[in-house]
Amino acid sequence: MKIVCSRDSLMEGVTIASKAVPSKTTMPILQCILIDSTDGQIKLTANNMELGIETVIEGEVVERGIIALDAKFFGDMVRRLPDGFITIESDSSMLTTITCSQTQFSLPARSGDDFPFLPRVDKSNFIVISQYALKEVIRQTIFSLSDNDNNKIMTGEYFRISDDKLMAVALDGHRISIRNISLHDSYENKEIIIPGKTLSEISKILSGDPEKEVRIFIENSNVMFDLDNTIVISRLIEGEYFNVEKMMTDNYTTMIDVDKQTFLNSIERSTLLIKEGEKKPVVVDIQGDNAEIRIKSEFGAFNENIDIGKKGEDLTIGFNPKFILDVLKVIDDENISIYLMGSKSPCFIRDEEKNYIYIILPVNFNSI
Amino acid sequence: MKIVCSRDSLMEGVTIASKAVPSKTTMPILQCILIDSTDGQIKLTANNMELGIETVIEGEVVERGIIALDAKFFGDMVRRLPDGFITIESDSSMLTTITCSQTQFSLPARSGDDFPFLPRVDKSNFIVISQYALKEVIRQTIFSLSDNDNNKIMTGEYFRISDDKLMAVALDGHRISIRNISLHDSYENKEIIIPGKTLSEISKILSGDPEKEVRIFIENSNVMFDLDNTIVISRLIEGEYFNVEKMMTDNYTTMIDVDKQTFLNSIERSTLLIKEGEKKPVVVDIQGDNAEIRIKSEFGAFNENIDIGKKGEDLTIGFNPKFILDVLKVIDDENISIYLMGSKSPCFIRDEEKNYIYIILPVNFNSI
Repeated sequence: MKIVCSRDSLMEGVTIASKAVPSKTTMPILQCILIDSTDGQIKLTANNMELGIETVIEGEVVERGIIALDAKFFGDMVRRLPDGFITIESDSSMLTTITCSQTQFSLPARSGDDFPFLPRVDKSNFIVISQYALKEVIRQTIFSLSDNDNNKIMTGEYFRISDDKLMAVALDGHRISIRNISLHDSYENKEIIIPGKTLSEISKILSGDPEKEVRIFIENSNVMFDLDNTIVISRLIEGEYFNVEKMMTDNYTTMIDVDKQTFLNSIERSTLLIKEGEKKPVVVDIQGDNAEIRIKSEFGAFNENIDIGKKGEDLTIGFNPKFILDVLKVIDDENISIYLMGSKSPCFIRDEEKNYIYIILPVNFNSI
Repeated sequence: MKIVCSRDSLMEGVTIASKAVPSKTTMPILQCILIDSTDGQIKLTANNMELGIETVIEGEVVERGIIALDAKFFGDMVRRLPDGFITIESDSSMLTTITCSQTQFSLPARSGDDFPFLPRVDKSNFIVISQYALKEVIRQTIFSLSDNDNNKIMTGEYFRISDDKLMAVALDGHRISIRNISLHDSYENKEIIIPGKTLSEISKILSGDPEKEVRIFIENSNVMFDLDNTIVISRLIEGEYFNVEKMMTDNYTTMIDVDKQTFLNSIERSTLLIKEGEKKPVVVDIQGDNAEIRIKSEFGAFNENIDIGKKGEDLTIGFNPKFILDVLKVIDDENISIYLMGSKSPCFIRDEEKNYIYIILPVNFNSI
């Protein structure tokens, strides 16, 4: 095989494909990136058996062929090469040289034939969404997925397409994050659960450009994202998702409006007195048009008063401060509304149109 | 005690003093910053018994007193407080409140009386150097100190003042770094060995401004650096330093001129094929007006040809690439000269005026 391409496009391709290289595996071939130029294009592929990425880069195929190179070394070499054109050439013994001007690396390649193919996905049905919207939806929900494999379904994010609406839901038993967005076209109803790991990797590849689109193909057990020159294929999580509608309510006994940044800063300060990993509630004490944020630990005490707008009853309630911070960090609104129903009931942070709904369970606190 | 100061000046003072707080200690009081306002100024002090820092900040002393606060919590609190004026007040039970606008932290303080005083240093003799020059000299030499305590003297940097010259030397048995600079005035001859840790911390405090000065007071066992509102006091390392002059020579059998950045890039690329912690030499093969840089490991091979100017004989020599990189990174010249005397003799990288002299011992290499 012999190919020639610019350092920049090779670098970009390797960076994208590397996201599907497993950090640990019992199959050494999976730690490689496959370079496949057998059909006249230069295709880089990685596959960790849950998630596969294939990306096409620009360049010239001088001699068609297929090889697999250790992803880490290959990536590091390309990164360190000077700007310019890079030639990758492998001989009959699979020794591969990577040359750029006066610089040359050589390393042994593996046979591309051992590399596991990506699954084929039926291309008849797909939905279209902007890369920006998908990237945002992931960022705004993914943090509330569970990282505990005991309940597999909670490690995946629920996507429900109904007509021209997409609802994304992530939950971990203590909190729920929901985003609703409008699609440009209408589609058949579909529900899938996408592994959190897949969404985390794809969001790094998505460009964030509202003008660029991604096509999402859904099959029984797989989902494929098609972006420009890259496709990402992932297994889906099987099973029935939770009944999210049942958890919703518009009722409240206390509703407050608060400046998001002020609230966020105050909660962040409160966490200073909590040791990493310790579960200490922050107390929010709502009295009239004032909320006192306070926390007490073995190291000291914190309290801060912030101005709020309030409807309904006064209330004192405790939260895991991390859960509040996670939500506040992904809301772009300057002011937020919080709906409460007593100190034992879930708290709802949502906008009027319900483009976002964040539900957080309160925690018990000793009176402080 | 009650003091009022701006968040910014408190922040700066705490950051400076924190550099003398030990990361581990059997004396809990040393993990505190002392706030001393007994003489009407606000003085922050930390002391790890090797190194002590005292810095004066602007502010108002409402009620004189002295307390010690846990450096980590105190620093984190100040960092998280909003911009504005901060009041620190401690009551008779040593409970201390730190208040800024609507925000309040409280934490227990320790008695300032337990805090170990900084040693007094005789102020009659001192030398003056710009903060910029001292910061640069440290950066350009400190990397070749030994981090192994077996030979204490090698963990310290040798400063020799003779007339209006300062020579700084750092060595670890494999390499020597020397910088010579001119001082504005002439001084009595003096030789000291300053602990590397002291220089590392002081270089973080030095402003890098050529207009700002630092006064260095030297006593038998201590050195004191006086910068604006901050003093840094350190113990010196005792013992007789190596005879550096004996290691010098102007002889060479091969001399090359090379573009520093090209050489640096090439050596950096070569290190890609070496595992962390593995000692693999990079080979520099000088033939006519070309140097081939090459390395070979279990992972693959690297070679690159770079243009050089050469006087004298051809030569093939091996180095620990890290030692070459460390030197190249701190030389500002675009072109460097390297003086060699065969593959078993030390290599000298120096400028014509000998403002800098870097000596690196070569390593054996198998012919590759």
